[in-house]
Amino acid sequence: MASGWHLARRPKGMPVPDDFALRPLPGRPLTDGEVRVANRWLSVDPYMRARMSEAKNYIAGFQIDEVMEGGAVGEVVESRNPDLPVGTAVLHMAGWRDEAVLSPADRPTRLPDVGLPLDHWLHDMGLTGGTAWIGLTRIAEAKAGEILFVSAAAGAVGSAVVQIGKAMGLTVIGSAGGADKCAWVRELGADATIDYKAGPVGEALRTAAPDGIDIYFDNVGGDHLDAALLSARLNARFAICGLIEGYNRGGGTTLNGLFRIIQQRIRIEGFLYTDHVRALPEFHGQMLAWIKEGRMKSRTTVKVGLESMPDAFLGLFSGHNVGKMLVRL
Amino acid sequence: MASGWHLARRPKGMPVPDDFALRPLPGRPLTDGEVRVANRWLSVDPYMRARMSEAKNYIAGFQIDEVMEGGAVGEVVESRNPDLPVGTAVLHMAGWRDEAVLSPADRPTRLPDVGLPLDHWLHDMGLTGGTAWIGLTRIAEAKAGEILFVSAAAGAVGSAVVQIGKAMGLTVIGSAGGADKCAWVRELGADATIDYKAGPVGEALRTAAPDGIDIYFDNVGGDHLDAALLSARLNARFAICGLIEGYNRGGGTTLNGLFRIIQQRIRIEGFLYTDHVRALPEFHGQMLAWIKEGRMKSRTTVKVGLESMPDAFLGLFSGHNVGKMLVRL
Repeated sequence: MASGWHLARRPKGMPVPDDFALRPLPGRPLTDGEVRVANRWLSVDPYMRARMSEAKNYIAGFQIDEVMEGGAVGEVVESRNPDLPVGTAVLHMAGWRDEAVLSPADRPTRLPDVGLPLDHWLHDMGLTGGTAWIGLTRIAEAKAGEILFVSAAAGAVGSAVVQIGKAMGLTVIGSAGGADKCAWVRELGADATIDYKAGPVGEALRTAAPDGIDIYFDNVGGDHLDAALLSARLNARFAICGLIEGYNRGGGTTLNGLFRIIQQRIRIEGFLYTDHVRALPEFHGQMLAWIKEGRMKSRTTVKVGLESMPDAFLGLFSGHNVGKMLVRL
Repeated sequence: MASGWHLARRPKGMPVPDDFALRPLPGRPLTDGEVRVANRWLSVDPYMRARMSEAKNYIAGFQIDEVMEGGAVGEVVESRNPDLPVGTAVLHMAGWRDEAVLSPADRPTRLPDVGLPLDHWLHDMGLTGGTAWIGLTRIAEAKAGEILFVSAAAGAVGSAVVQIGKAMGLTVIGSAGGADKCAWVRELGADATIDYKAGPVGEALRTAAPDGIDIYFDNVGGDHLDAALLSARLNARFAICGLIEGYNRGGGTTLNGLFRIIQQRIRIEGFLYTDHVRALPEFHGQMLAWIKEGRMKSRTTVKVGLESMPDAFLGLFSGHNVGKMLVRL
């Protein structure tokens, strides 16, 4: 019998295991156009925390006592859709469960056989790699020879930004918390790293980039954003992907470098992966080439079994994992 | 004998009359290519305050005991440049003096006879009107039907933004300090005004624009910028022209609405008039048409005589004048 994780209650502050409940899913025969998919890999991502809240956000919230959703890759095991025969690999959003029934309205994406293990569609070929690529190419319009600063560079998106940045011919400075994470960011190819736990980010960035930065890929906000403003060169572009610092702490962010927006003619732009789906074919082609050239060291932390989903999700907020967190079924 | 205002000393905080000194200028015969210009109109602008400081800025500072500079319109009275015969009207940067000797390196701009009094080239056809037009068309990419919020709407740039915004078919909300200035902003055509001295800007903006804003033209920063973030609609664009609030007060700016940058995919961009000179012919053609259609009510505060320059300049910071401040010689 299929089962899935339901939202048991809305978390207050940091989520806890009792906010989630694993319950059986009612079985039913397929109707025309539907497929039954056995999920193989499930994604957990920080944005899901926002969907657990009642507050209005850029994506609809989860409902109490309903199955949660998220990125998943699976295989069609029963089909009443001739475009998706049994055996087809699909990417879809009915995660947090072991088996999903999908109609055409759920827009399952057929995955081409490009010689990659399926889990790649949930990291370097998926949301995290795609977010990094869109931010660099579409929002920041990065050009070879420019200087890039990226925060949370050991994270799932940040580590993709570091590697895509190097593949595009940029000088890359990555910030991460602690010596181990910084060592890994250097392994990914970063030219310099900043351990933000070791001292003020602004000073460290001035040292790492004495001539300033052209691009800032922001996963953090707060002091990192202010440091980037103060180190921005003329016509710098900031791709704002996450402002985690503010989400956790609450309250306002104090910026000392706002005056630089005019002085340096900085362009700051927020973006979401989902607004750029038309660019994904180009992304997939480019990323696949980079993977085959050995340029992408994607690191994943894998937990096994549906029951480990809340544990994997909560691990995103402990700051201990490195790279993309996945659950294999 | 010609004379000009020299920087006597660098101001501490708000400039005072003793920071300026009116001194005779040494006379000399022209060399090939030069023209002697009798200035008719001189401009005073807030950006000149920054040039009086030692601090590095986006434009070179004035030097102690040298003549100050600024926008000016004059008439060629002696010429060794066949392109600029006696009688030609020119726009140039050798202001703060009654007579200027200009070489081709000073790039005097010959003013076409378009049937306008010369002073227009220092306001609606000049820096302030051009800054408004560039911000709306080139930075914010405003489209008819959108909702525009502009701060310091009674100021020289802001009043041009209000009128250009209306000419472009936008709904315009302008903020200004006090009932008199707000009344004038409504006279200019604004659909709604916010008196920022009467209460919090954020609340007033939510009332004036319950569905949010598409464009924010920022002359102020601080609370106005935060209010604009919190009221921004999807894909809002902010043209950052001035952040006066921070210049005067010093210290950082606390923003509560930063998270909206991602949620609403806001684009924020700083700009300077001088980066967009290639767009000026299009601006001049468009603005001239609007002036002839009677769409632009340019209001100027005019002081007379070279000796009134420091007084006119200091008046910019008193908050009492409305529209563009000019000195007529």
